Parts: sequence; C-alpha cells; structure tokens
Amino acid sequence: MKIGILGAGQLGRMLALAGYPLGLKFRFLDTAPGSPAGELAEQIVANYDDLRALNRFAEGLDVITYEFENVPVETVQFLEKYCPVFPPPGALEAAQDRVVEKSLFVKLGIPTPKFYSINSLDELLENLEKLQYPSILKTRRMGYDGKGQSVIRSAEDAVIAWNDVAGVPSILEQFIPFQRELSMLSIRSKTGDIRFYPLVENHHREGILRLSLAPAPNMTDSLQAEAEGYALKLLKELNYVGILAIEFFEYEDSGNGKLIANEMAPRVHNSGHLTQDGAVTSQFENHLRAILGLPLGSTAVNGYAAMVNLIGNVPNSEDVLSVPEAKLHLYGKTARPGRKLGHINLRSDSAEKLKAGVDSVQKLLG
Amino acid sequence: MKIGILGAGQLGRMLALAGYPLGLKFRFLDTAPGSPAGELAEQIVANYDDLRALNRFAEGLDVITYEFENVPVETVQFLEKYCPVFPPPGALEAAQDRVVEKSLFVKLGIPTPKFYSINSLDELLENLEKLQYPSILKTRRMGYDGKGQSVIRSAEDAVIAWNDVAGVPSILEQFIPFQRELSMLSIRSKTGDIRFYPLVENHHREGILRLSLAPAPNMTDSLQAEAEGYALKLLKELNYVGILAIEFFEYEDSGNGKLIANEMAPRVHNSGHLTQDGAVTSQFENHLRAILGLPLGSTAVNGYAAMVNLIGNVPNSEDVLSVPEAKLHLYGKTARPGRKLGHINLRSDSAEKLKAGVDSVQKLLG
Repeated sequence: MKIGILGAGQLGRMLALAGYPLGLKFRFLDTAPGSPAGELAEQIVANYDDLRALNRFAEGLDVITYEFENVPVETVQFLEKYCPVFPPPGALEAAQDRVVEKSLFVKLGIPTPKFYSINSLDELLENLEKLQYPSILKTRRMGYDGKGQSVIRSAEDAVIAWNDVAGVPSILEQFIPFQRELSMLSIRSKTGDIRFYPLVENHHREGILRLSLAPAPNMTDSLQAEAEGYALKLLKELNYVGILAIEFFEYEDSGNGKLIANEMAPRVHNSGHLTQDGAVTSQFENHLRAILGLPLGSTAVNGYAAMVNLIGNVPNSEDVLSVPEAKLHLYGKTARPGRKLGHINLRSDSAEKLKAGVDSVQKLLG
Repeated sequence: MKIGILGAGQLGRMLALAGYPLGLKFRFLDTAPGSPAGELAEQIVANYDDLRALNRFAEGLDVITYEFENVPVETVQFLEKYCPVFPPPGALEAAQDRVVEKSLFVKLGIPTPKFYSINSLDELLENLEKLQYPSILKTRRMGYDGKGQSVIRSAEDAVIAWNDVAGVPSILEQFIPFQRELSMLSIRSKTGDIRFYPLVENHHREGILRLSLAPAPNMTDSLQAEAEGYALKLLKELNYVGILAIEFFEYEDSGNGKLIANEMAPRVHNSGHLTQDGAVTSQFENHLRAILGLPLGSTAVNGYAAMVNLIGNVPNSEDVLSVPEAKLHLYGKTARPGRKLGHINLRSDSAEKLKAGVDSVQKLLG
C-alpha cells in the first residue's frame, strides 16, 4: 500500500516513521524542497494547485491524507478522482474557517464561545457591544500558533485589532476565563470503528504549545466522557476518517469543570505527540490504520506521559539523552526563532517521576 | 551527523527508523538494489570490495557501522581511513570465524563447548574420538540460521558431514544437551559506558529463530549476573563499541542453571527486536547512541515482552492488528520460503496476558 501525504513537514515525517513498520510506502507533496519528510521518502516539490504535479503525485497511490489543514479544498476534491482522501473534505472546509467551524459546533450542541462573523470595522464595532470585554478578533482563515489574533479590551482597541487582522474576514469571539486548555484526540476508522485517547492538558507560551501532559492531571471520568461525547458528534456528522483533534477550554461552572470547544484540527496534532512513547499506539500509527481500514490500536496511556516542544533551538542531544527515559524527536529542520524543531517525550509509572523528568528537560531549555 | 551502514537489510532499516528521531541521517551500501533500508534512505549499490564505491560511500560520514558480521574485514579497514567504524574490526574478525571466536571465549574464561579445528577428513575422524556422540561439524565461516552445520551421531556420519560442509575449514563441536537458548544483548558506548538488557529466551525451528521472550522466564539474578560477567569480559577485551549479542545455552549443573557461550554477533540482533516495543530504549537506538558516544538509554524491559518472527510469509495486517497490543514490523521484502519478512512484538504487564497474545499471533501463522 502506498500512501500520499500533502505536506512534508514534521507531521508527515512522523506518519512515515510510524508507517514503515506496517510495510507501507509513502509519497509526499510539498512546496518546499528539503522538507522533514522528504529526507526519508519520495517527495514531489510543487504548488498545491499544480495539476500536472497532482497527477504525478496521485499515480499509484492507494489513499491520500494531509498533514495540515490549509490544503486547498479544491486540491483534495481534484485528488479524490484518483483515490480516497481522508479526512474527508467536509472536515477540511470546517477546520479552515473559524466561523464555519464554530457554527458546526453550535449546530451539534457542542458548547463554544459566543462569536460574530466580522467583515468590516463597522460590523466589529456593532458586535463588540454584544460581548463583554475582553474579546478576541481572529482571522477566519490561516491562523495558527496565535498568529492573526488580537485581544480587544475596550472599544478603543477595535481599530488596532482591525488593523492587526489586516481587515480580512474575521471572527469576534467571547473571551473565556478558562482554567486550562485540554485536547481530545479521537479516531474514526474507514470501517466506522471509533476510539478516544485520554484528555491531554496543554500549556502554551507566546501562543505556541510548550508542554502537554496525559492523562490530563485531575481528570475525572465525567470530563473525559463529556469530551468524548462532543468528539463523537463531530466524527459522525463529518463521516470522519482519521485522527481528529479538538481543543477545549476548561472553565469552572458551580465548582465543576466544564468544557467549551475552541477549535479542531482534522489531522494528527502536536498535543498527541506524547502518544509516540506514552501510549500503546501512537496517533500517527492509528491515523494510518484508520485511513486504511485496519483495526485501530489501543489508545491507553501507559502510566503518565508528557511532551515538551523544542521551539527555536534544540539543546545538545547529549544533555537530552542524559535525562532518564527522555525520548528525543527531531524534525531535521534548521533553527529559526519560534520554529518547531522537535520535541521530547517522557513516560513514567509515577506522576512525581514524570514531573522530575519534565523539570530536567525544561531546565535544559532555559 | 550522518551514519554509514554496510548492509541495507532489515537491521539497517530499523537502525534508520530508530535514528531519524535523533536527527541523524543515513547512507547505506549493499550489493542488492531495492533493499529494505534503501526504501527510506540513500543507498549505494555496489560490492564491498569496490573501492570507488567505498570512497563515495564514506564521503561526509561521521561514523560507519554494519548490520551483518560477514562484511569483509578489509572493507572495514579501508573505511577506517575516512572515519571511525564500530564495532571495531577485531570483533568482526572474531565473529566471522568460529574457531577464533571460541578460542577468544576460552582465553577469557567464558565456558564454551569443547571444539577442534578441522581441515581434513582425517582430522575430523581423529578428533571425533575425543568427543562423545553426538557432536556437530560447522563451517568456520559464513554459517547462519543453522546453515553449514551437520550433526554427527556415529563415526559413519563423518564422511556425510564432511561432504555437508563441502570440505571447507570447519569446527567440530561438542554437543551440549541444553535446556534452552538464552541471549544477552550488551552495549558499550564510545565513552566506555556499559549496559545490559535482561536475558532473552529464544525458541528456534529449522535452525531459525521463531520466538523470543524477555525477561527470560524463570530468570534468576545469578543467571543474569553470570551472563553480564561474560559479556563484560568480551566488551573490554575487544574495546567494543555498539550492541554485542551473545547466544548462550543453558544446561543443568547439579540442579542449577549454568551458561555456556555458543556464539556472538557484533551487531543488533534478531533476539533484541522485542526491545523496540518492550524496553525503554530499543537495541537500535542504543547501538546508535553507543557509536556516537551519546548517553546510553535505559535497558529496562517494561513488564513482559515477546517477539514472533514472520518467516516465509506474512499474515494479513488486519488479523495481526486485531490482536491487542501486537506491534507489526514488516521489512518490505518479497516473500520467499525461509526468509525473514518481519516480526510482531508484544508487551504486557502480566506474563499470562503476554502468553495469550503470543498464542493469538502464533495461531495466525498456522
């Protein structure tokens, strides 16, 4: 079986690394030569709207998937003439546009922050009055890692925010005073089989994920069940195939933790990297199993797992590998400020030992 | 860092899969095009005595290793002019010749079956009298998976055996009525750091490894200590760097298990494949760490681990992946009787559950 992957970044690279042991072969398409996945598989360098390149890319593939949600929907629709593309284009469309995404949440009864579609400064000013301060203006499309976002603390901020988003179609969202961010990695196979990983707790700095912990500390069965229920609705509505990541805010509601959905990603997700060394089956392997209709693997986490992202620079391998049980994952990228260059996974049978390992790793990052 | 590997079979392939996450790059040299490792890294197709190809192979490499012990020693010595080659040629020389190997065991006080170097039928007949029947005649060089061996049960078998080994320089060995075969995977880093994996119990059929279990059932601390002691002597004597596998027979000596060394392999070893999913650090990653002088990773086995080899044919992935916790490792080779095409690893917190998993997998193999 040969799998085509749109995007040859680190997620594609880790899909290939998880897929080779299953006897799978890979071909990548990416605009950038020398991409992380290109080092270990066939890569076609071309734009996503280059039909001749797409023809070449699709030749002889059994199934196609993608590693980032900004693949043009037209590209996916074109490729579907050759072989199945998973996750389905509907999921891609929803994930590419924050208004479509949040409208889908509302339609399915999944709690989400109040929001307004904004197409002009006037519309922004008008809708600002309906929300309490602070609120957040985000571009509808192409935002990631906190880019294309502006916090509005008073009416005076509106013009600045509108400039921040460069006047493109945007979404104004209610600000949720959340306790923490949690993510749910769910999987649905081509055969309809569904599994859920335990909730992951995520810590960001400067809008970029820095640390993930699983199972999320102080997780309750009811919180897990709530997240699974929301994920299930999305998986079924979208006739989804593959890994679906959903980011939730947890906030306190009369003493109990409640979830509110922030966004989703129709792909393997940074907060799921800890499954490589911490779960029975990694998100990468399960994504491949799902799109091939193979039985899904156990999503159980063995004890306690953590992931620390390596952003902008990478410590000495010697120092990292001196930390007991630290597993290094580098992407083969050149260093640049704010760039995701790798991550370190840790796993332990005790939460205390895991914390000690995380502390050691974070010390190395300064 | 770029690693050169002589031999692009499954062991090389799994070294690369373990090394990419460490940010390493790979180049392979093998006589056969389309080799398992060539699918996921640069491969030069050439003979091992092709000096121009060796020049091209060595260019820009930081360190060279090999995945099989029949690499010509001259090739390694030639390559040493460019960069370090590990394990060192002395280990290769010892492992390539059963007489040199067993003489080394004797020199270091490591118990090994009685043996005689045989260069003629007369020599065979003469030495047969000094050993009890049965005894075994093996070619000194190039034997593997039970090939190039002949059991001698009476003086009459001598001529047949001498024909079986085609009259090449051979070794006549005492037959050990052993209870089981155990293997010790030890590692010594370039920095001198040394670690040992728990003893592995191995089951063969038709001379080919079929099943490995770790830790070896009914293992005692004294058995592990005995094996470690022997491995330590070899690691130090050979100034060894990398994974060293030693196969032992366990036999009963006044009610206690005792070890007798059968052979060694200066490379990652089939009986260590279970470390991929059963140990904190796989033998492949630790071999790379050792030859790069990086800190060695924990060799602890998480609970109970097993490996089942896929010989000659491969069951449906769908069936394999239906077995809870079964991890499939295929090598991308075409099927052929007696050929190692892949393996399945299993890991469990209980020996009973592990056994159930192994039984399920073995049922699939028929």
